[in-house]
Amino acid sequence: MSNFTQLIEELKKLKSGLFEKDFLLTWDKTEDELRQTLLVAEALKHLRDHNISAKVFDSGLAISNFRDNSTRTRFSFASACNLLGLEVQDLDETKSQIAHGETVRETANMISFLTDVIGIRDDMFLGEGHTYMKEVGDALDDGFQHAVLPQRPGIVNLQCDIDHPTQSMADLLHLVNYYGGLENLKGKKIAMTWAYSPSYGKPLSVPQGIIGLMTRFGMEVDLAYPEGYTLIPEVVEMAGKQASASGGKFRVVNSMDEAFANADIVYPKSWAPFAVMQQRTQLLKTYDKDGLKALEQQCLSNNARFKDWECTEEKMKLTKGGKALYMHCLPADISDVSCKEGEVAASVFERYRIETYKEAGYKPYIIAAMILNNKFSNAAEMLENLYKAGKKRVL
Amino acid sequence: MSNFTQLIEELKKLKSGLFEKDFLLTWDKTEDELRQTLLVAEALKHLRDHNISAKVFDSGLAISNFRDNSTRTRFSFASACNLLGLEVQDLDETKSQIAHGETVRETANMISFLTDVIGIRDDMFLGEGHTYMKEVGDALDDGFQHAVLPQRPGIVNLQCDIDHPTQSMADLLHLVNYYGGLENLKGKKIAMTWAYSPSYGKPLSVPQGIIGLMTRFGMEVDLAYPEGYTLIPEVVEMAGKQASASGGKFRVVNSMDEAFANADIVYPKSWAPFAVMQQRTQLLKTYDKDGLKALEQQCLSNNARFKDWECTEEKMKLTKGGKALYMHCLPADISDVSCKEGEVAASVFERYRIETYKEAGYKPYIIAAMILNNKFSNAAEMLENLYKAGKKRVL
Amino acid sequence: MSNFTQLIEELKKLKSGLFEKDFLLTWDKTEDELRQTLLVAEALKHLRDHNISAKVFDSGLAISNFRDNSTRTRFSFASACNLLGLEVQDLDETKSQIAHGETVRETANMISFLTDVIGIRDDMFLGEGHTYMKEVGDALDDGFQHAVLPQRPGIVNLQCDIDHPTQSMADLLHLVNYYGGLENLKGKKIAMTWAYSPSYGKPLSVPQGIIGLMTRFGMEVDLAYPEGYTLIPEVVEMAGKQASASGGKFRVVNSMDEAFANADIVYPKSWAPFAVMQQRTQLLKTYDKDGLKALEQQCLSNNARFKDWECTEEKMKLTKGGKALYMHCLPADISDVSCKEGEVAASVFERYRIETYKEAGYKPYIIAAMILNNKFSNAAEMLENLYKAGKKRVL
Repeated sequence: MSNFTQLIEELKKLKSGLFEKDFLLTWDKTEDELRQTLLVAEALKHLRDHNISAKVFDSGLAISNFRDNSTRTRFSFASACNLLGLEVQDLDETKSQIAHGETVRETANMISFLTDVIGIRDDMFLGEGHTYMKEVGDALDDGFQHAVLPQRPGIVNLQCDIDHPTQSMADLLHLVNYYGGLENLKGKKIAMTWAYSPSYGKPLSVPQGIIGLMTRFGMEVDLAYPEGYTLIPEVVEMAGKQASASGGKFRVVNSMDEAFANADIVYPKSWAPFAVMQQRTQLLKTYDKDGLKALEQQCLSNNARFKDWECTEEKMKLTKGGKALYMHCLPADISDVSCKEGEVAASVFERYRIETYKEAGYKPYIIAAMILNNKFSNAAEMLENLYKAGKKRVL
Repeated sequence: MSNFTQLIEELKKLKSGLFEKDFLLTWDKTEDELRQTLLVAEALKHLRDHNISAKVFDSGLAISNFRDNSTRTRFSFASACNLLGLEVQDLDETKSQIAHGETVRETANMISFLTDVIGIRDDMFLGEGHTYMKEVGDALDDGFQHAVLPQRPGIVNLQCDIDHPTQSMADLLHLVNYYGGLENLKGKKIAMTWAYSPSYGKPLSVPQGIIGLMTRFGMEVDLAYPEGYTLIPEVVEMAGKQASASGGKFRVVNSMDEAFANADIVYPKSWAPFAVMQQRTQLLKTYDKDGLKALEQQCLSNNARFKDWECTEEKMKLTKGGKALYMHCLPADISDVSCKEGEVAASVFERYRIETYKEAGYKPYIIAAMILNNKFSNAAEMLENLYKAGKKRVL
Repeated sequence: MSNFTQLIEELKKLKSGLFEKDFLLTWDKTEDELRQTLLVAEALKHLRDHNISAKVFDSGLAISNFRDNSTRTRFSFASACNLLGLEVQDLDETKSQIAHGETVRETANMISFLTDVIGIRDDMFLGEGHTYMKEVGDALDDGFQHAVLPQRPGIVNLQCDIDHPTQSMADLLHLVNYYGGLENLKGKKIAMTWAYSPSYGKPLSVPQGIIGLMTRFGMEVDLAYPEGYTLIPEVVEMAGKQASASGGKFRVVNSMDEAFANADIVYPKSWAPFAVMQQRTQLLKTYDKDGLKALEQQCLSNNARFKDWECTEEKMKLTKGGKALYMHCLPADISDVSCKEGEVAASVFERYRIETYKEAGYKPYIIAAMILNNKFSNAAEMLENLYKAGKKRVL
């Protein structure tokens, strides 16, 4: 109880401009806004854990637009919307005409007459996902200004080509709980490193999201990858600036060992090189199947040169006291379990398995917090009222 | 506020038999019943716009059965049901056995045990959609009479081969709001005209729905199409009779210019000729792919003879003061935007774009009104109670 | 009203351990637990029939996982969840990685953070469906114990390779209502017999579910099939033991006539022989298309030897007074209606059609009862409170 009251008190101290703003990139948000997202997520979790209803909507639609497959994020979005009282309707583009130019503008309005929030995943094409989300946002602004829409639905980025904010914020909330407070992250070393995977074409948005967020809080962030596996240059540059500003550190190294050395936290995860993703985007656009196959072949054989980029027990011994916290967005490529050789040794994964599940478990609340902050100007007051009302979620 | 009270007062004056009746064709409804549908839609929109809950169902299912693709109507139906408190479940026929005879009767009952409303789109086969909906209705009557079903789900026609009442009623509500009252439509000229499109096989239900509805209110309705692009003869005949009865006019012309001349409203929209739709239905039934391809080819080249049936700036100048209201059910084939040559010039569409969006925006409320009138014997009282209760939709 | 009170009084007398236990097999439940399921289903039906809300959840997700097509059970599950206030989210495995070993454990947790119930249909592979459900259950136990999940979602078996408890319990509730009480079933003869069908590979779970349940209540159960069409031996053996224990009878005969002789109830329904299902499981696992085609051919031609296993008017005359109650889980293969030669003559089916619809109509309430008993330790009290609150389902 005092826990909840404390959360609300902290919330009230923050200055936030999240109201009526889409949540597309964490680095577009101020530190207070990120803190507010974390606190609201915690408060919503508290309500749910104490069987108190958080239904702030009596009715209303939430549209999900998954332009790529998803299980985890799909269910997290559905859970978040349901928690708040919104019903999810999936926009299946195979049955619609949503595409480019005119039609994005039109469809965005057509699905939004009674819609409060839109969640979008669009991570396939480098240079497009984020652009698409902004285009949808502009269309909604236009519709709202012209009184086509009685409300401006908020947009939540459920993963784009640049950032994966619902993932990185859930990861951050996990760290906050693991270390007992955001302030305790100061000076902690996190190793965001590439890891070997037998698959290819994994998006860049997770590592970008991690370095783009963790450099905000005075952490020591190491980004490690084999030569050539670069991320979007602008994001890497920004991470460096953020680290300086927050009193933290950021460096790029080409050795997993170096990144793991004395790390408090390790995040070994595969991705495709930026240059490959650029080529792939072109090939996908032109439906060049042969080109795609050739690129995949070339990329996989290049990957194979770095099979030693695996989070093994040996590598874990390099970390602080040999006990760094292992993180992953799941599903991980686990050696001898989900594949022959992968990102992480089975024994390492198994030891941290429950922690990775808990890490994932914050995502529904992070999404719900993003929605709540977008739709209510005073989240603290709203949460306080829910708490006082104390309506049971389950009778 | 006085606005809402006025709507309710008007509602109370009407005599309506909408309770427990399916909404399949507008011409099966009396003028009072159509007025009631418009008024209830307006009242529901008023509630929603003032953040008042219209949740008349605490729980209950609404089944959607889309036998053809749809985005706009799908989301309108979902929005309407959610507004009233019903949860949409989609009947995906690829996973079921719903078909003909025995099985329609059975499936209609199997999905309806706890169902309050069923929305059906079935516009592919000429001579079938409406028949199918009546068959479902008969099956539900049978199940309800034999106490298989604790309630008789109402059916809403979400587009059949003959009529598209949720579209035409939304169009009408748009006109009512645009001109400041249903009585102001008297004497207004509307041109429902064919327009060129590079696609083929577009259903007849929109133009049929428009001439079948707009002739009820003393309007001057011109139906225009190139020779051969006839609609279902019985519907055209009926439109003529209705126009006479309502003190309006109805004529068929073979010139877009003639229809546009001095028109207050223009509705240029492509459709396939009745005879072609009959042939197509036969070919679809026999899965005759070659036949379908040949018919499409023939039809498209015939269409191409009428590329000048485009709603251009020049044509718009022919209308009353050059300022007729442009209408469309969307998506429109916009020249140089969604296609090279289409139904409407880009500059004309752009000028009326926001109006067409608003037009579409009435559909969720029209559908909700159809449901409310079907399930409640006294809609006025119900709406008044919701208004007085004043429960917030969003806290 | 006194009807409802009586239901609650009966409920209060029962000792039940259904709370927090999955409902996978009827024979894992005590007689009191089965009675409780029936009574709660009746009480929920009473509430719904009297327009009283049974919404015990303010929010919460229900996951459906259909690993095989379904219409009836899909809508029954959706109806049940909606009745109680849960929103269904479908886990579409084509878009996820749920499979075996590690991944079942992970996915089970990933979809369950805010989930109250999971309904699973998995009836394709002999030896797998039930095993899969237990695996999911173990994963959920693990997640709950480690505080990954704030609640342990209950599992409802929506048909596995062994049992189909939502079907057999709905069938039983139909009999209870048809004969005016569970005690009136004592001594009644039911003929669960194989019947000819032009299709193949129908699961064994319905006949197994029937003999596994009806032998619990002192009935005389005849299982009849042509030589070779055996069920899982262990289930048949268990049915015999149960019949003895309950003061009923159980025998296996190879003649439809013998089973029909003096029967009070007949349940003629096709299934594939146990041995064939075992072979089929192997072939399905290895994607052996030719093998499957050959097996189907062989099986269909074997079926064809038993076309006289049809529930005809003649056969019906053999039953008690010629008036046995005909039952079926639907859809039935009706001769001259849904196929040329099938399980049942058209005139017999038509005479009992409405009864089979009513039989199916109990399924949503049975499922809702299973959920309610799983989530609430005192169902009687909960139902009483709902009744007293008397909140209207439809305003």
